[in-house]
Amino acid sequence: MSVTSLETIQDYRTVVRERHSVRHYDPNWQISQAELMEILAEASLAPSSSNTQSWRFFVFHDKELKQRLLPIANNQQQVVDASATVAVLGDIEGYKRIGDINDIAVAKEYMTPEFAEQFTANSLKLYGGLPPEVLTRISLVDGGLVSMQLMLSAKARGYDTVPMGGFNAAKLVEEFNIPSNLVPVMLIAIGRAATPGRKTSRLPIEQVTFWNGEGL
Amino acid sequence: MSVTSLETIQDYRTVVRERHSVRHYDPNWQISQAELMEILAEASLAPSSSNTQSWRFFVFHDKELKQRLLPIANNQQQVVDASATVAVLGDIEGYKRIGDINDIAVAKEYMTPEFAEQFTANSLKLYGGLPPEVLTRISLVDGGLVSMQLMLSAKARGYDTVPMGGFNAAKLVEEFNIPSNLVPVMLIAIGRAATPGRKTSRLPIEQVTFWNGEGL
Repeated sequence: MSVTSLETIQDYRTVVRERHSVRHYDPNWQISQAELMEILAEASLAPSSSNTQSWRFFVFHDKELKQRLLPIANNQQQVVDASATVAVLGDIEGYKRIGDINDIAVAKEYMTPEFAEQFTANSLKLYGGLPPEVLTRISLVDGGLVSMQLMLSAKARGYDTVPMGGFNAAKLVEEFNIPSNLVPVMLIAIGRAATPGRKTSRLPIEQVTFWNGEGL
Repeated sequence: MSVTSLETIQDYRTVVRERHSVRHYDPNWQISQAELMEILAEASLAPSSSNTQSWRFFVFHDKELKQRLLPIANNQQQVVDASATVAVLGDIEGYKRIGDINDIAVAKEYMTPEFAEQFTANSLKLYGGLPPEVLTRISLVDGGLVSMQLMLSAKARGYDTVPMGGFNAAKLVEEFNIPSNLVPVMLIAIGRAATPGRKTSRLPIEQVTFWNGEGL
């Protein structure tokens, strides 16, 4: 089945239910830089640890660049055929931007300058004292949060996505000179579906929930 | 400002923009088990690594249980005042359920039995060969994905949430006898807001995006 036009979705519940991983994309469909940036900006409204926003987005949009990514992503063709493939990265030094983040909050009158100063000082002290493993864990969780919202925001605009964990992270870092403070979280292909995603099953929610700890 | 009624939100973009971390909850507001399970079930429509759904939810709903959680969560009062606090956990042995997951897919005719059998065998081999650190990383990312959708699904129903990374994970495990295969990802309080959440600032999207790798 070929998709002939984009169908945007307003309804939250529909967005959640219609989002499926899509592995076949229309290679001729372009998503503009402006629209992709809008999707990323909406995704980044996600919460993060002390609002440090340690996520970083390496957007593979250029065709040749996507081709270089292909073997690193186990030759999954969607990496090239999708309009873009986003490498979501976690910056374990991202907390160093907390001063900038709080300055913006002060300018917008979300915080008083006094509160911001104290908050920045406390955060720099707290995060600066954490070992890299802990900062990495925080980055992975926050990277997961922003990635989910990215996929939903794409779907709401009529696009499809697929998250990919199956790629060679070490080669990604090497091939694209990614600095050591940036930890790969996942790849997300985004574009216009050529064939719709398959439905997938879920375990009954009772089987993954411990209500008041029962069944642990 | 006190909230007098729940305002459900249908519009996706509004849900995303109205979700803010809320730290003050109406302690008298109850969310029923049925409604919480519905929210968790919707959240679990999130994607995960090979659809392994390694997330697990320890729901603190009982008042006495929430009180026991309070000191472990740095005495953040929302843990008790919210209708429930959900400990999102990642099961590093969650991949062992892949056969059950694929059986459901076969029953729903999402997969042929032959495909399911092969997929299950491949997944068990692949994940069974991964070291615990790698399985932990996968669980943290997938836990982030499901947590984001949980917070949005709560918001769509008129509830507020706050994700918490600031808690004593070791004490949580000890106090509630959480088995060693379950890795704490985050706590999420959910309930009816007593005071609305504050807006928070975001870095300009251009500052966290490397378009075709530029600016890395």
